[in-house]
Amino acid sequence: MSDVLDRPGSGPAIGHNEEGGLKIVGTRPIRPDGADKVTGRAAYGADFNMPGQLMGKVLRSPHAHARIVSIDTRKARALPGVKAVITGADFPNLADEFHDGGEAASNLRDMAMNVMARDKALYEGHAVAAVAAMSNAIADEALALIEVTYEVLPHVQDVEAAMAPDAPLLHAHLITEGLDERPDRPSNIAKRNRIARGDLDAGFAAADVIVERRYTTKATHQGYIEPHACVAAWAADGQCSVWSSSQGQFMVRTYCAKVLGIEISDIRVTPAEIGGGFGGKTVVYLEPLALALSRQAGHPVKMVMTRDECFRATGPTSGGVIHVKLGAKADGTLTAADVELKYQAGAFPGSPVGAGSMTALACYNIPAFRITGWDVVTNTPKVAAYRAPGAPISAFGVESAIDELALKLGMDPIALREKNAVRDGMKAAYGPTFQNIGYVETLAAIRDTEHYKAPLGPNQGRGVAVGFWFNVGGESTAAVNVGEDGTAVVVTGNPDIGGSRASMAMMAAETLGIPVERVRPIVADTASIGFSMLTGGSRTTFATGMAVVQSAEKVIADLKRRAALIWDVAAEHVVWREGEAHCLAPGKDEKPLSLAAIAAQSARTGGPISGQTSLNAQGAGPGFAVHLCDVEVDPETGHVTVLRYTAAQDVGKAIHPAYVEGQIQGGVAQGVGWALNEEYIFGADGRMENAGFLDYRVPVASDLPMIDAILVEVANPRHPFGAKGVGEAPIVPPLAAVANAVSAAIGHRMPDLPLSPPKIVAALGG
Amino acid sequence: MSDVLDRPGSGPAIGHNEEGGLKIVGTRPIRPDGADKVTGRAAYGADFNMPGQLMGKVLRSPHAHARIVSIDTRKARALPGVKAVITGADFPNLADEFHDGGEAASNLRDMAMNVMARDKALYEGHAVAAVAAMSNAIADEALALIEVTYEVLPHVQDVEAAMAPDAPLLHAHLITEGLDERPDRPSNIAKRNRIARGDLDAGFAAADVIVERRYTTKATHQGYIEPHACVAAWAADGQCSVWSSSQGQFMVRTYCAKVLGIEISDIRVTPAEIGGGFGGKTVVYLEPLALALSRQAGHPVKMVMTRDECFRATGPTSGGVIHVKLGAKADGTLTAADVELKYQAGAFPGSPVGAGSMTALACYNIPAFRITGWDVVTNTPKVAAYRAPGAPISAFGVESAIDELALKLGMDPIALREKNAVRDGMKAAYGPTFQNIGYVETLAAIRDTEHYKAPLGPNQGRGVAVGFWFNVGGESTAAVNVGEDGTAVVVTGNPDIGGSRASMAMMAAETLGIPVERVRPIVADTASIGFSMLTGGSRTTFATGMAVVQSAEKVIADLKRRAALIWDVAAEHVVWREGEAHCLAPGKDEKPLSLAAIAAQSARTGGPISGQTSLNAQGAGPGFAVHLCDVEVDPETGHVTVLRYTAAQDVGKAIHPAYVEGQIQGGVAQGVGWALNEEYIFGADGRMENAGFLDYRVPVASDLPMIDAILVEVANPRHPFGAKGVGEAPIVPPLAAVANAVSAAIGHRMPDLPLSPPKIVAALGG
Repeated sequence: MSDVLDRPGSGPAIGHNEEGGLKIVGTRPIRPDGADKVTGRAAYGADFNMPGQLMGKVLRSPHAHARIVSIDTRKARALPGVKAVITGADFPNLADEFHDGGEAASNLRDMAMNVMARDKALYEGHAVAAVAAMSNAIADEALALIEVTYEVLPHVQDVEAAMAPDAPLLHAHLITEGLDERPDRPSNIAKRNRIARGDLDAGFAAADVIVERRYTTKATHQGYIEPHACVAAWAADGQCSVWSSSQGQFMVRTYCAKVLGIEISDIRVTPAEIGGGFGGKTVVYLEPLALALSRQAGHPVKMVMTRDECFRATGPTSGGVIHVKLGAKADGTLTAADVELKYQAGAFPGSPVGAGSMTALACYNIPAFRITGWDVVTNTPKVAAYRAPGAPISAFGVESAIDELALKLGMDPIALREKNAVRDGMKAAYGPTFQNIGYVETLAAIRDTEHYKAPLGPNQGRGVAVGFWFNVGGESTAAVNVGEDGTAVVVTGNPDIGGSRASMAMMAAETLGIPVERVRPIVADTASIGFSMLTGGSRTTFATGMAVVQSAEKVIADLKRRAALIWDVAAEHVVWREGEAHCLAPGKDEKPLSLAAIAAQSARTGGPISGQTSLNAQGAGPGFAVHLCDVEVDPETGHVTVLRYTAAQDVGKAIHPAYVEGQIQGGVAQGVGWALNEEYIFGADGRMENAGFLDYRVPVASDLPMIDAILVEVANPRHPFGAKGVGEAPIVPPLAAVANAVSAAIGHRMPDLPLSPPKIVAALGG
Repeated sequence: MSDVLDRPGSGPAIGHNEEGGLKIVGTRPIRPDGADKVTGRAAYGADFNMPGQLMGKVLRSPHAHARIVSIDTRKARALPGVKAVITGADFPNLADEFHDGGEAASNLRDMAMNVMARDKALYEGHAVAAVAAMSNAIADEALALIEVTYEVLPHVQDVEAAMAPDAPLLHAHLITEGLDERPDRPSNIAKRNRIARGDLDAGFAAADVIVERRYTTKATHQGYIEPHACVAAWAADGQCSVWSSSQGQFMVRTYCAKVLGIEISDIRVTPAEIGGGFGGKTVVYLEPLALALSRQAGHPVKMVMTRDECFRATGPTSGGVIHVKLGAKADGTLTAADVELKYQAGAFPGSPVGAGSMTALACYNIPAFRITGWDVVTNTPKVAAYRAPGAPISAFGVESAIDELALKLGMDPIALREKNAVRDGMKAAYGPTFQNIGYVETLAAIRDTEHYKAPLGPNQGRGVAVGFWFNVGGESTAAVNVGEDGTAVVVTGNPDIGGSRASMAMMAAETLGIPVERVRPIVADTASIGFSMLTGGSRTTFATGMAVVQSAEKVIADLKRRAALIWDVAAEHVVWREGEAHCLAPGKDEKPLSLAAIAAQSARTGGPISGQTSLNAQGAGPGFAVHLCDVEVDPETGHVTVLRYTAAQDVGKAIHPAYVEGQIQGGVAQGVGWALNEEYIFGADGRMENAGFLDYRVPVASDLPMIDAILVEVANPRHPFGAKGVGEAPIVPPLAAVANAVSAAIGHRMPDLPLSPPKIVAALGG
């Protein structure tokens, strides 16, 4: 269920059916990939096989921190059926270099060493060797025959413990960046970043009320249902093929080339269907290993992770410590904010603390603030992106503190946020000036719900929280190819992780003026379409969609030219309306020509009709989410039931509203899990103790109520249909919304996630 | 071994390195697909599998002509493991409609009825039912359980017998087209075509010498090594995937859609590697059956033909009867020619007699001629295209007659041909006026060989023959996508049947000015690239190559624009030379920027760099071949040994000379087989008696000498590098060249192919 609220006058910036408004964009057609996914035909990472393929398996470190003294692979190599054994020695040593070729910048050396350890294993699960064999059973046997001599080192996993001067050092040469003075000794602190404005002391001095508290979150995993899987082949002439499930076939191509030291054009990556990514599939783990094994074996190699491996060896998001101090006037006007963020990076630098810092106060107009972020390496798996990376963590602290402030001031929590809300023309805490944002409309949408006014029962509490995500644009390529029967194929280079097939087909159909059922959206391999950044950052419907619309517009220009040829009139006398070319030439009385009619004559009018566009899209438009959550706490067991949840979001223009609602509902579900149950639990030995879905508890359908999504459409004028990214913002508020509701229910601020039953019982004095 | 003869002043029409000439076009780099093919990695039609696939098999008619009274599939359906059984009733009845959507026009109704018989089986091997089962063994068992009741009808296979008024009728309603008066009764003659010019009677009256003879050829098969194979899946929502080996993925898409009555955009066809086609893979046989079986079974279905099925159920070329009458002056000047061609069409109309007629006299300038062609249906497999379809058959007759005329006149056979040769500005027998042809240069190339002057021994003979092929252009799409590392991917929609990957990569590299090793050519699926006509007609290097070059030129235009941005100069001050942008802006002293340097900055200068072109290429430029053959005949056994063979050809510009030589050598080898040994042998029951490579004798390496290829480069001004098609012309002369040599060796004109030992022995009076 959802309502669509249109801000008066905020319709789409550009309509392609100027006379009739939008016909397809904003409707809810059956998704093009729906039948494939519900009938099992969709081919995911593990659903592909190559003739003669071997099975690859990874030997992983059992220690959280250990020097690799030696690896003896001789017995494994001698086992019949074993065709390749690789270790770190099979990979080139890369320079300490960031790669920003379109994707999120990654340190290539670190990525390569995360894919396969060299002299040290930095976390339990770190790959130290891999084998390819005739079967999984032989591969397992071979792994057991590899003799690794470890020198076990002391480990550190807690982020504040890792920051201590005497903490075990992960990297002997890691010098903190971003400090006022370069430190003279290494530490586990990779970087400090700081964003500040105004006079902080004066701001707090001007405050009537101050709240201050320390909050913590635990590392959580994206929990995608499909484990990482790939098949890779390295041919005799060095040409490589990779089939894998990822958020970006071009990302896989680039990183495999870099890690293996070969040319990008020597690799062709075919994207499998993807069974969830949420940011966790924006890096490579198996693909370079499978290629290196294939090179040695001379056969294709297939690798599929277990769930256990997904937990131990792929990136969760950071656990963090958030210190928040807020000052406000008695009327609720914020005067100052001081936020400190400490984020686990895992085994290599690169936590999302930068984005966590930039988003922390993005919803607020505060005259004086300081945000300090710390990126800290720990003996845990290298973190990966997880939906709005970094933002839920800082928002949990800030939104909990705002809630505490509202209580202290006796103010309505929405009114307090409205009073301090950023608006068009204000400079965001992270720098740019906001334009065309829909934040206050989104706050109002929640304030005006029946839900917000509904009464609560005993042991029940209500929480509000808001969230922000930038959304991004970036490089995309798309092609629209018209068939001789008037159908169209839309080709993009972005895996469909959240409905992009549907939105691309709809935008193309809207632009061309043909039924969406006559448009077939295709996710092409790296050789078949131009470069496209990965699907992530909530960029695809915006940026790739823009490339699709521009390609469709090129097709229309060509269709008009063809119609002019057919009618023998000047091109400027042809207009395109409602999917048809109309002849406006004086003295001509021609019937309009449909796309199909023109396509049928394409051979005689110049050949196939197609349009292609490569672009680097700017102006994605930030998204704001306002969430409202009711919970009931069982005082006996400490169990929290989410009774009701309403999420409103500034979505620009919902191309396919059901998908947008799904994004919001999915973000809420993941955020609720993060708030209530999910956490990496490590033993004293540094080993994860709950690496499976029985012990790492994600919410299931029966844990959640129906989540109501309210789509607030404040059009993004930089997109042809007003769209902006919608996939990240909905995971930002739930941690605080749930915690604020629980705190209200039990009358006790709950600053440490997850709010699992033992913590609730303890807080209740049980 | 080859020589390259450049006509003075006939260099490439457009050079992209104006200062340095061509650097890559005309060289012989290692082919991009070479390693894949020699190491077994290349995936052909049968090398692909889909999860859950079933195996499909076809039940074929054992009768050459029979009414299908009933088909009882109940026992087959009841067999455990059988998942689908289809017959003609599972396909829509199509209208009698020609489809000219880019490919060779095909009658859709006939194609559909050839794929699966309806009320009549028209040849032994005609599909009457098909099954899909869990294994090949179960499928075979199921075929045996299908009970077909046939009413066997009289059959006719010889082309002249089929033309007789009392011949058994294949199609009750077939009325001959092209006659002066519409006949009042049906026959097996589908069409008469006629090309004529001048006063034939006056021409013959003016002749000093007349030769006249009847020649015959037998049906021969293309003999591609890879049998037809495909995997197809029909999903629950009607979306279809096909993996198959063919000469055109778009052709497969169109024809499957038509035969099954679905939309083109509902089918995605991925081209497998192709193990030979030679025209025989320009139609569909298995793909629609696999899709129909998959629709019924709900699983993907794989189908692979046996060699036996290839012979019995796929199109060979026509057997033909050629009547030739030539008149000439004593000095060799031709005065008149009367040619009559009777071609087997097989079970449905559509022999290549049209092209056979148009090419018959294309090499000759004759004041008066008449060419009459007859397209005749017979109870044999429907013919398919075979390399220069129709031309070798008519050329066999005409070139044998020219040889006879030369003997009668006592003239050198090349001198006779030179005297009557077509030249630029002359109107071809089939209509257009020749321009930029290289025929006389090609005649001269053979005349000037050492081979032509070499002495012959006892029982040896020498033959000369010439051949012509139009070559075609047509619709093609290509994209050039530049990677961030400065490599490029060239995407086309044309299967590589004869080196197009190499030629596309070379033309792109030449245009862009980068090493060919940095260009990766890709054959994309139907969803990933715009429409392209199939690979055939010798069009791909010409037409698709033109699309590649234009796409590369778009990339260069973009690279220049990017360089201008980087340098902050006006775009017109940037020129592209030798793979680098040069800054000519006054007062600027910028170092040239390579493609790689500009590509590395593409994100900052507007996004990915790519160019795409769709076109309908015209001006392919006809090709002429002149062949010279020495044979020795064993008078005891009648065995013919080809001692020496030299083939010269007007190739425009050889993009990759080794490939062009390979095309020529391959055409000669196939022509020699056609001349000496290959033939469909039918029993009195109408069944083929030699449906295997042991009994249908194609030449093997030990049967052939090294074939010397001479490339005569008379540039085609309508192609950027002067290229024209080269793959068809070389199969046109060998039938006559060999027969003329054998006739010379034994002193007896041999008008009936193949010249197998029994015929030679009989001719020698043995």
